[in-house]
Amino acid sequence: MRVMIAGIDGYLGWPLTQYLLAKGHTVGGIDAFLRRQWVEEMGSHSAVAIAGMEERLEAARERWGQEVLFQEGDLTDWELVRAFVEDFKPEAIVQLGECPSAPYSMIDVHHATWVQTNNIVGTFNLLYAMREIVPEAHLVKLGTMGEYGTPNLEIPEGFFEIEYKGKRDSIPFPRQAGSWYHWSKVHGSNNVMFACRLWDLKATDVMQGVVFGTRIDEMGSDERLRTRLDFDQAFGTAINRFCCQAVVGHPLTPYGKGHQKRGFLPLRDSMQCLTLAIENPPLAGEYRVFNQFQEVYDITDLARMVKRAAARLDIQVEVRNLTNPRKELEEHYYKPVHQKLLDLGYQPTHDVETEMLMMLRDLANCRDRISSKLEALIPDVHWDGSRRKVDFLEMHAGLKS
Amino acid sequence: MRVMIAGIDGYLGWPLTQYLLAKGHTVGGIDAFLRRQWVEEMGSHSAVAIAGMEERLEAARERWGQEVLFQEGDLTDWELVRAFVEDFKPEAIVQLGECPSAPYSMIDVHHATWVQTNNIVGTFNLLYAMREIVPEAHLVKLGTMGEYGTPNLEIPEGFFEIEYKGKRDSIPFPRQAGSWYHWSKVHGSNNVMFACRLWDLKATDVMQGVVFGTRIDEMGSDERLRTRLDFDQAFGTAINRFCCQAVVGHPLTPYGKGHQKRGFLPLRDSMQCLTLAIENPPLAGEYRVFNQFQEVYDITDLARMVKRAAARLDIQVEVRNLTNPRKELEEHYYKPVHQKLLDLGYQPTHDVETEMLMMLRDLANCRDRISSKLEALIPDVHWDGSRRKVDFLEMHAGLKS
Repeated sequence: MRVMIAGIDGYLGWPLTQYLLAKGHTVGGIDAFLRRQWVEEMGSHSAVAIAGMEERLEAARERWGQEVLFQEGDLTDWELVRAFVEDFKPEAIVQLGECPSAPYSMIDVHHATWVQTNNIVGTFNLLYAMREIVPEAHLVKLGTMGEYGTPNLEIPEGFFEIEYKGKRDSIPFPRQAGSWYHWSKVHGSNNVMFACRLWDLKATDVMQGVVFGTRIDEMGSDERLRTRLDFDQAFGTAINRFCCQAVVGHPLTPYGKGHQKRGFLPLRDSMQCLTLAIENPPLAGEYRVFNQFQEVYDITDLARMVKRAAARLDIQVEVRNLTNPRKELEEHYYKPVHQKLLDLGYQPTHDVETEMLMMLRDLANCRDRISSKLEALIPDVHWDGSRRKVDFLEMHAGLKS
Repeated sequence: MRVMIAGIDGYLGWPLTQYLLAKGHTVGGIDAFLRRQWVEEMGSHSAVAIAGMEERLEAARERWGQEVLFQEGDLTDWELVRAFVEDFKPEAIVQLGECPSAPYSMIDVHHATWVQTNNIVGTFNLLYAMREIVPEAHLVKLGTMGEYGTPNLEIPEGFFEIEYKGKRDSIPFPRQAGSWYHWSKVHGSNNVMFACRLWDLKATDVMQGVVFGTRIDEMGSDERLRTRLDFDQAFGTAINRFCCQAVVGHPLTPYGKGHQKRGFLPLRDSMQCLTLAIENPPLAGEYRVFNQFQEVYDITDLARMVKRAAARLDIQVEVRNLTNPRKELEEHYYKPVHQKLLDLGYQPTHDVETEMLMMLRDLANCRDRISSKLEALIPDVHWDGSRRKVDFLEMHAGLKS
């Protein structure tokens, strides 16, 4: 299958390229290397040293004997997107090309505006290019479980049937996101849903949980095939940050009381799920939503799992909560359904602690890169609009790890 | 009360200025005169000749002895918005400064992208200016009943309490809009809802029905106080277009089967409702939604009412349906609640036919302006992305008027 990856240079885009090439698919992609710039703006860099795109493509060529069609450029540039789609004629388009950071979007009015417009315009360009050139292609759009927020209800996969005042209807499950970034994903989901109704396009909207992991098997030992792993406050995600903290002996830092529950999945599971979506497209006009995660975890439980895994490598770390810079519920009901990918054959990685051990071993080789940017780990972007480093939280005994 | 009107030069903004001045409020406003440009781009102009802003402000000064602080400029310009709010220190901000046209947003990728980004960024700038300078001010944001679409459920005012799989919660009523423009309003509603939760701002989100009418009493006979009235395919709305068609003897043209149901309200009711919202702000942190319309009407019934009113002025017109350029249900369930404004004291104009008579008399003086742009009345922007003039619809006898 011909698969176009928007955001091919990113944390997910580059491993997905390899996963698809290894399965015999043809891959092309666009990237403007903005992720590298954003992380630099946050005063950080990837914990794992990564190669430039030319080296990456060379490595892929050597390994799988396939040429990846690559175009440097911005998804918000309509002519560039149109020309690429015209040239490559994708059967599937994976939209990994949005800015994925909640804290980055909360910095100030300029970042809020930029994240929302950037994400909306990029997806608009893909939708219009599909309509015009490849109306039978399948859009796989990366959303986030964060679109739903934490309602006091079971969270279905996108839609639910309800009875209200004596009438029944199947309607979209309301979204209650928690940052300008998360809302940008809701806006995008709404636009994609409407485009399917409007033009009979087909799309899978992936409400993905938080991804963690340093590698997939396909990378082997070729350094050029490694993907980035961020640990700064804006682009680092929970388990990845905890593992980076562990290898440099820094306390693991849940925010607030630390009982936020979220869906998580290993990088290898993300690749497996996205590929299942790509290889099993919906019908024309169908907009389907997948809740994509391996399991729901409590953030503090995850920190303790990382602590245990680290201990097996003789690294002793403590868990110390930080005051929460976000506005979010720290204890809440959370029960999202995730059945559709299992129905397609998703085999979840159940041994999460082994995955963490693998990460810690990889990241132990990146200690210098992490230590040199340690300041970037401690958040200073507050949801109230201010910017100041957070403190450790004074917690009563019962809450300590 | 100090009221800032974003979009003060528009169809609603200019009469609202007068309505508020007449009630003793202080008014300031921003406008970039984009509405005048958009209508020109659609090959049309306002049926009612309107004065320029300087003349308008001069007339307001003469009539109410009040200076209106006016700033020409674009809401997407953060520094301009910030400076105006800093200078004027509004207690209420009415966001009438978004592009309000569904067909305009459906023209092509550039218009779709522009309408959504323009509308999102303008509202972002207002929200951030409130947060920074006037956190106790009240935002009255113009949304549209079209945000809800036409679900097979009663439509509450923004939120509803449901039971689902044994759990109860009060959640946002899901939106199912029908154009990129309507979705831009949903995106804006979501952003405003989140800003209230985030920063304890207060906002009223007005899900307004379709407004019709040429005047409010406050205008008297001063030509400089008249507001625009559009009849082109993009910026003209149903009753206003029917009345313009009637006075030049053109058939009245519902789209498709013509049994779409929508909430409507006279211009004077819109002014009354917006002012009730302004004068009765919500509490800090409260995001409330008003469904603002006088009554729900079937489009064909409205065409027949205009036909009857025209006959009273000895104008004979027929109703002839056009093929529908939009993708929408032409027959559907529709039951939106509208109680909150009534609870605040809204006195609806019940005599809609008299309102139509008044419009027809006003518009009879604008025949030349309408006739000179008659082509603009017939839609060519299709929801499938094509552009071609629609034809009259061949209908079987039972459907004819």
